[in-house]
Amino acid sequence: MAPLSRIVPAARRLRIANSTFQSSHNLRLATSRPAFITAQQTRLQHAQAEASTSASSADHSPQSQPKTSQKQIKYTSDSYPNIKRDSRFKELSAEDVKYFKELLGGESAVVDGINQDASDDLEGFNADWMRKYRGQARLVLKPESTEQVSKILKYCNDNSLAVNPQGGNTGLVGGSVPVFDEIVVNLSRMNKVRSFDDVSGIFVADAGVILETADNYLAERGYIFPLDLGAKGSCQIGGNVATNAGGLRLLRYGSMHGNILGLEAVLPDGTVVDDLSKLRKNNTGYDLKQLFIGGEGTIGVVTGISIICPQRSPAVNVAYLGLESYEKVQSAFRQAKKQLSEILSAFELMDAQSQRLYQKATGAKLPLEGESPFYCLIETSGSNADHDSEKLNAFLEQVMGDEIVSDGVVAQDETQIQSLWACREGISEASQHFGGVYKYDLSIPLPELYNLVVECREHFEKNGLMGETDDFPVLDVVGYGHMGDSNLHLNVAVRRYDKAVEKALEPWVYEWVAKQSGSISAEHGLGLAKKEFIGYSRSETMIKLMKQIKDLYDPKGIMNPYKYI
Amino acid sequence: MAPLSRIVPAARRLRIANSTFQSSHNLRLATSRPAFITAQQTRLQHAQAEASTSASSADHSPQSQPKTSQKQIKYTSDSYPNIKRDSRFKELSAEDVKYFKELLGGESAVVDGINQDASDDLEGFNADWMRKYRGQARLVLKPESTEQVSKILKYCNDNSLAVNPQGGNTGLVGGSVPVFDEIVVNLSRMNKVRSFDDVSGIFVADAGVILETADNYLAERGYIFPLDLGAKGSCQIGGNVATNAGGLRLLRYGSMHGNILGLEAVLPDGTVVDDLSKLRKNNTGYDLKQLFIGGEGTIGVVTGISIICPQRSPAVNVAYLGLESYEKVQSAFRQAKKQLSEILSAFELMDAQSQRLYQKATGAKLPLEGESPFYCLIETSGSNADHDSEKLNAFLEQVMGDEIVSDGVVAQDETQIQSLWACREGISEASQHFGGVYKYDLSIPLPELYNLVVECREHFEKNGLMGETDDFPVLDVVGYGHMGDSNLHLNVAVRRYDKAVEKALEPWVYEWVAKQSGSISAEHGLGLAKKEFIGYSRSETMIKLMKQIKDLYDPKGIMNPYKYI
Repeated sequence: MAPLSRIVPAARRLRIANSTFQSSHNLRLATSRPAFITAQQTRLQHAQAEASTSASSADHSPQSQPKTSQKQIKYTSDSYPNIKRDSRFKELSAEDVKYFKELLGGESAVVDGINQDASDDLEGFNADWMRKYRGQARLVLKPESTEQVSKILKYCNDNSLAVNPQGGNTGLVGGSVPVFDEIVVNLSRMNKVRSFDDVSGIFVADAGVILETADNYLAERGYIFPLDLGAKGSCQIGGNVATNAGGLRLLRYGSMHGNILGLEAVLPDGTVVDDLSKLRKNNTGYDLKQLFIGGEGTIGVVTGISIICPQRSPAVNVAYLGLESYEKVQSAFRQAKKQLSEILSAFELMDAQSQRLYQKATGAKLPLEGESPFYCLIETSGSNADHDSEKLNAFLEQVMGDEIVSDGVVAQDETQIQSLWACREGISEASQHFGGVYKYDLSIPLPELYNLVVECREHFEKNGLMGETDDFPVLDVVGYGHMGDSNLHLNVAVRRYDKAVEKALEPWVYEWVAKQSGSISAEHGLGLAKKEFIGYSRSETMIKLMKQIKDLYDPKGIMNPYKYI
Repeated sequence: MAPLSRIVPAARRLRIANSTFQSSHNLRLATSRPAFITAQQTRLQHAQAEASTSASSADHSPQSQPKTSQKQIKYTSDSYPNIKRDSRFKELSAEDVKYFKELLGGESAVVDGINQDASDDLEGFNADWMRKYRGQARLVLKPESTEQVSKILKYCNDNSLAVNPQGGNTGLVGGSVPVFDEIVVNLSRMNKVRSFDDVSGIFVADAGVILETADNYLAERGYIFPLDLGAKGSCQIGGNVATNAGGLRLLRYGSMHGNILGLEAVLPDGTVVDDLSKLRKNNTGYDLKQLFIGGEGTIGVVTGISIICPQRSPAVNVAYLGLESYEKVQSAFRQAKKQLSEILSAFELMDAQSQRLYQKATGAKLPLEGESPFYCLIETSGSNADHDSEKLNAFLEQVMGDEIVSDGVVAQDETQIQSLWACREGISEASQHFGGVYKYDLSIPLPELYNLVVECREHFEKNGLMGETDDFPVLDVVGYGHMGDSNLHLNVAVRRYDKAVEKALEPWVYEWVAKQSGSISAEHGLGLAKKEFIGYSRSETMIKLMKQIKDLYDPKGIMNPYKYI
């Protein structure tokens, strides 16, 4: 949790009565990169905190202090007793380990739990950082070249040895750690930038490069990696591609499917998919690399990426606004797109309940004095600070003049930017502060997005599960998220974990999302956590077609087994 | 060709001596939509002219007046005698036609050349608009629903009848017309907008909607289709997706792979791929729709698309600049990206030879008085005309102050915008004005992009094929294109078509491109024209993997046969 003092109450108050903002002058700020990077790092802490409390839909056991808890993590095979080890997979022998040691040429590239006890060394590769999943791998391999990855996979495929590809191991759905004794193929030693073209902005690098390292490299050259994540200090760009990570910049820069220009990947049989194009346009056949983007390591291992990077914006502004209804939130979003257009870089939604909970949990003073049913955080990023401020001012004057927005503040400096972001990013921890939280990360078409929160509240009230006294397990239902991407975080804050609440939530939430043609996983992927729920977001036909692809590329099923589809 | 009078010499002259532009005030223009649409329409005429002269690399026969020529188009099977009709495919019978007539329920949905002579009616479906390819289809089907497409394909698959999916038939590589007697499945009757969400900008429509119709629909709502093409008045959005069309807006809005959110497509066996998501984020399994983007109708028929559309920019500016070297062009591009950043919407390259040829062919006065070795056309599109002009001015002052750009003009009104665009878009026709032209549409990494033009000239000089008198077949080699996308158009202007020139060009050009890891087809696709050259842009492994996909989805090979890979 960020220290409460981070909420600096100096963010300037905007007048509501007429359409003039007190802060309509001198809105320029945060033009220096170091300040911006600091802001990103703050986000990182928040986002990691956010993720650390996220309960998979399959596992609602209380984990209120996951990062500090010293208790042993339960084996995934115990949490999911229905999943059995696939007997087609051979068990590792000393001879297999010998092959790998010779191939990788050094003890540092192999964590060997077959010939010796290496439990402590293996633990970091077996357990995810949320301490929710724990595998039983006894061998970790750290190749340093694509050729080595190819030879590892070919050997595993020939010998029916199951493989768990692993990047930074920051995933949220249990996809990055083994379930049983799969060999962990960890990409951390493949961490070189291969090339960067300063004119086109095309960046080519090994899959194991840390996202933040890549972004810092680009920052020095005036560019930005078109993806930003809370876990940027640990996650790897290959893992980002394999999980089709969304993150904070999607609204502005679009998805991996558009930005990734080329991939190098290794198929289970050792075939190297040499599609590491540095071209923005290349219409010569099926775009196979797209299958690996979001494929979660189930059909191959991504070993290199080529990505087009945009210019880094020197100017950043943040506003925090109060609104009277979800309809007005949609109007504000529409206006922001229209008026802020090319400089809009974030449009985040927070409901009153989320801000109340945040205030209650942290004691922080909220940026606005009165309470509104909804709040939005708007960020702009552009090449000219004066222009951006002028656009933001004009936007704010209009939405307040038209009574779309009822109140608002604009950050005047980097500290205030961080304070405003904290109101958004502190919700996750606040949600579990009073006992626990059930969390869902959903895509829902924008017009219906907030209805889920409203109906969820009604649902609990009808069931007598939510109320103001300790008799009721549910304290509140809060809704927030990346409005710009139609990505809702639904958090059910509870006084205690309760089977009745779980029963009321599932499959109710998934059915609701399915009815709106939404997605049960907006950006986290399927992994182990969502595997059994894919039917709520994909038709039988689509699942069948996906399984066809899996069988085509991985007929022996050795790649990241027990997960995905 | 646009009338010469379109070149209005009023575009204001910029001073070079110091870094101040005469036109640095009052740069605002073109804020009204109708004017913008007019500009687009002008482009359309140019671009169609451009395409109409393009010779495929496999067929260099002179076609200097293709649109006005009355001669019969040669059958593709005669132009490509090596391609034989696949005997696995059944020939159509009256009984087949009866089935389709009953299914589609009306004569208007079927052009029947089996039971009657329908040569005239069939001709428009058999011949491409460049008059380069001509098939021998005797049956055209025009389904009006996805269900009908499904039943057609299932019947064809069950009965081994070959199918040629067809959109607006505006392709440039012979992919949209049959080779032999494939049944043409034309999507023109599937032309309804299914939905549009004014808040998210997500547009869902049938595949047969004309691109311009879609864009006009969006324009009325303040949005823009994130793709613009010369052929927008005829091409269909389903065809755009199937060919992964690039066009004029890719630099700004990115590719189809990022913008398409969902697809509905029908597989050869009749399976409907129901992936018409309206979600910006959906990480639930392999992104199969990507295979249909650029799949050129070889694994299925796209019947519906869902696409995210950006805000339409009310302000448009165009500048035309002279530069002393390709290194300076790259510097100018780098600076444009930095300073114009979020408002840059086009950065086009034209060499001196291309402008000289344009001037010679049209008699038009060029915008700048002296000659520079290179010219760039820069377009900005943004939400605030004053801000955009200020940014453009600051950019121009810097690049001229730093002697990156030696001369330039900025358009003051819509007419001047068109005049400046004409200097870029008139090159294609000018290239063939003196006899003929050999054209290549290539992707080459930016640093090496222009070297091909230089080396091509040297190559011809060495071979004694290029010179100033009529003794030499080659008049000049010109280079131009979408610099922002690393997309070069290499035009070899000739006094007459000549086997020696062809022999000097191929495979020399393809080998050169292959050495630079470029692409032999930047945006036009493979179709029939490039099928045999794919090996220059893709490895054997990639081609093998692509064929695997083709076999998976279309085991009988009925979809758009004889083409692609």
